[in-house]
Amino acid sequence: MRAEIISIGKELLLGEIVDSNARQLGELLAKHGIDHARRATVDDNTADISAAITEALGRSEIVFTIGGLGPTYDDVTREGIASAIGDTLIEDTDIADALREKHARRGRAWNEVLARMALRPTSAVPIPNEVGTAPGLRIEVGDKLVVALPGPPSEFAAMLESSVAATLAARSTQSSRSRTLRIVGIPESVIERRLEDLMQSVNPSVAPYVKPMEVHVRILAHASSANETNELIAPVELAIRERLGIAIFSADDESLESVVISLLKRKSQTVATAESCTGGMLGQRLTSVPGASDAYLGGYITYSNELKAREVSVARYDLAKYGAVSEEVARQMAEGAIRHTGADFAIGITGIAGPDGGTESKPVGLVYISLAGPRGVEVSKQIFAGDRELIRFRATQVALDMLRRELLLNESDARPAES
Amino acid sequence: MRAEIISIGKELLLGEIVDSNARQLGELLAKHGIDHARRATVDDNTADISAAITEALGRSEIVFTIGGLGPTYDDVTREGIASAIGDTLIEDTDIADALREKHARRGRAWNEVLARMALRPTSAVPIPNEVGTAPGLRIEVGDKLVVALPGPPSEFAAMLESSVAATLAARSTQSSRSRTLRIVGIPESVIERRLEDLMQSVNPSVAPYVKPMEVHVRILAHASSANETNELIAPVELAIRERLGIAIFSADDESLESVVISLLKRKSQTVATAESCTGGMLGQRLTSVPGASDAYLGGYITYSNELKAREVSVARYDLAKYGAVSEEVARQMAEGAIRHTGADFAIGITGIAGPDGGTESKPVGLVYISLAGPRGVEVSKQIFAGDRELIRFRATQVALDMLRRELLLNESDARPAES
Repeated sequence: MRAEIISIGKELLLGEIVDSNARQLGELLAKHGIDHARRATVDDNTADISAAITEALGRSEIVFTIGGLGPTYDDVTREGIASAIGDTLIEDTDIADALREKHARRGRAWNEVLARMALRPTSAVPIPNEVGTAPGLRIEVGDKLVVALPGPPSEFAAMLESSVAATLAARSTQSSRSRTLRIVGIPESVIERRLEDLMQSVNPSVAPYVKPMEVHVRILAHASSANETNELIAPVELAIRERLGIAIFSADDESLESVVISLLKRKSQTVATAESCTGGMLGQRLTSVPGASDAYLGGYITYSNELKAREVSVARYDLAKYGAVSEEVARQMAEGAIRHTGADFAIGITGIAGPDGGTESKPVGLVYISLAGPRGVEVSKQIFAGDRELIRFRATQVALDMLRRELLLNESDARPAES
Repeated sequence: MRAEIISIGKELLLGEIVDSNARQLGELLAKHGIDHARRATVDDNTADISAAITEALGRSEIVFTIGGLGPTYDDVTREGIASAIGDTLIEDTDIADALREKHARRGRAWNEVLARMALRPTSAVPIPNEVGTAPGLRIEVGDKLVVALPGPPSEFAAMLESSVAATLAARSTQSSRSRTLRIVGIPESVIERRLEDLMQSVNPSVAPYVKPMEVHVRILAHASSANETNELIAPVELAIRERLGIAIFSADDESLESVVISLLKRKSQTVATAESCTGGMLGQRLTSVPGASDAYLGGYITYSNELKAREVSVARYDLAKYGAVSEEVARQMAEGAIRHTGADFAIGITGIAGPDGGTESKPVGLVYISLAGPRGVEVSKQIFAGDRELIRFRATQVALDMLRRELLLNESDARPAES
């Protein structure tokens, strides 16, 4: 089974954005064992879109379009599809009613321009858009399929999950399954050395992907049934787990922050934060997890020295003596956050995210990360590479991993190992 | 003048990486006023590459290939080009010598597989690769041009700069320039209605791009000189500014948080934050701006009710009476943050980001955003659509815009209007 993607939009051709939607859909196709044969990126005009769809339908069984479903005059994907398959556009009154209702619910005025989003080829079935407004479209063309998806990334991602994944699973004749192990705290080169022999395997294939301060190892298996793919994956996953141990923090889509929140909830423990250079990023990551309030009490963004002293009781004497970016201040930030909030654990972060403010002894990228808890306080000194955002992200990543490893340690103290 | 890009590589189709090379080349084409008409992404095989080149040469004057120039068996771009233009491959002895020499200099052993990189169509001229090994290729096909560029991003970027930019400048008869106005606080549909006539214009073209709680309007002009493009853009920009006023918060790449920090610094004023549902995201956005410490003191992540009471002095009676997500609590969060930090302004955010926790009277997406400052406190009640992350982002976007508008208001009070 072959599929093609047609990404639509001048902003892609002008290089204003990268095509992260197409990347995501490519990944989903791979996961379902469907051959992503080709992708075209075309301008917002009916003729180009129509030509690209016609060509793709001549070669492949499934054709996806991404973008051009909004209400404006340059959103002409609907027209392009209709032209390619020789259909005409009608106004779908159900879509129109739903759009009006959605708008009313949000207290926004209706505008006739918006009615363009209710147009569809007569043979199309709308795909609900749970996040935005414009629906997607699904059109059977003989035994082939055209699926039109919206361009805004959050709407696109939601529609992949709510509808496209099931469509692909139903159409795919091959069973294929991937399992991604997420690893933190070991460099990629060490992982590659430890997994070198496994990475030679073809089915399942084993491939590492490097993220900032995180490596994902994907095991991908193809077979004629789900059972067989599972049987291919299981021994390889076991081998990787034996070699990498607790550096593997989750499998598949679970984020590091989500793992930390789950561990805290399971142990009925809580954490608080005191952030300087990360300015709230750690709190933001912890609270990105639904239900975080059971485990995360809150925290302090002590960006100024005054707030470090006043809110988390860092000694003014030490701020002057060691400077705001120091082991001593990091330690006191976490200790102060525990005292002020009553949390079981607290994390303190202070560093120089740049691009300015570095010195010879305290360069850009220097970050102290402290973890206070029942066993005392530890402080990790790090020098991160990267730009301001990457340095900040890396600091939160190390902080979350310190807490995760501490919680796992407590766990193995508290009960015998499961194996 | 039309150009097309053909990106080559299974890793692109499998969604393992985004095509940042193509984005970068797209940007360069736009800068030189060359119409990037279409892009194809194809697999590493000779037939697909050859077909894509033939199609592209049928439509456009310049065809770029990216990738597939390495030494391995799946690097077949050279074969694809030769097949498309009816040429044969020869070994270029100069390239081969240079490759051998490069390898010797790096202390690496020569391997006959590497000699594949010295192959080229007889009509091709090699483009030196200053960063890596495989040279690029430049082939005149009648009055058209095929340019083959390497895939590794650092080699690709170096070759764009060292060679491709000059080729484009020489071929382009046009200068082109774009200007992007960034807008917040007006829905896209209203912007489109107000700019409807301008959006009909072809040169400069005017096109809106919708982001979460933000719209970008791009003005793009082509002319025979830089002066002329500026002359085309200026009156259209003025017209848009007249119609949208202070809803335009910046031009080109400046973010909303950066505008807010700049305004605060210009007025030597400071802000603090008290966040509940956004959990630090507002602080994180403000501190993503280098030099934010002159304007942002810090803040509180009062995720639990206890911290709302203890850290920013929300009355426990009101927390019980109105609930944590209420106008009253939002107001007291901002007021408390001002009192506790001494900032000139403070922002409070409390809401229900979901996916759980919504009720009929307080649905998921309900967020109260408060701004306290010298003129008192205002509270905005919003019901945002989207998932948890989008609701949180939208809340921070409205918060930043409230502060921005307040700062602009102060500004026009303090001095006569510039016009």
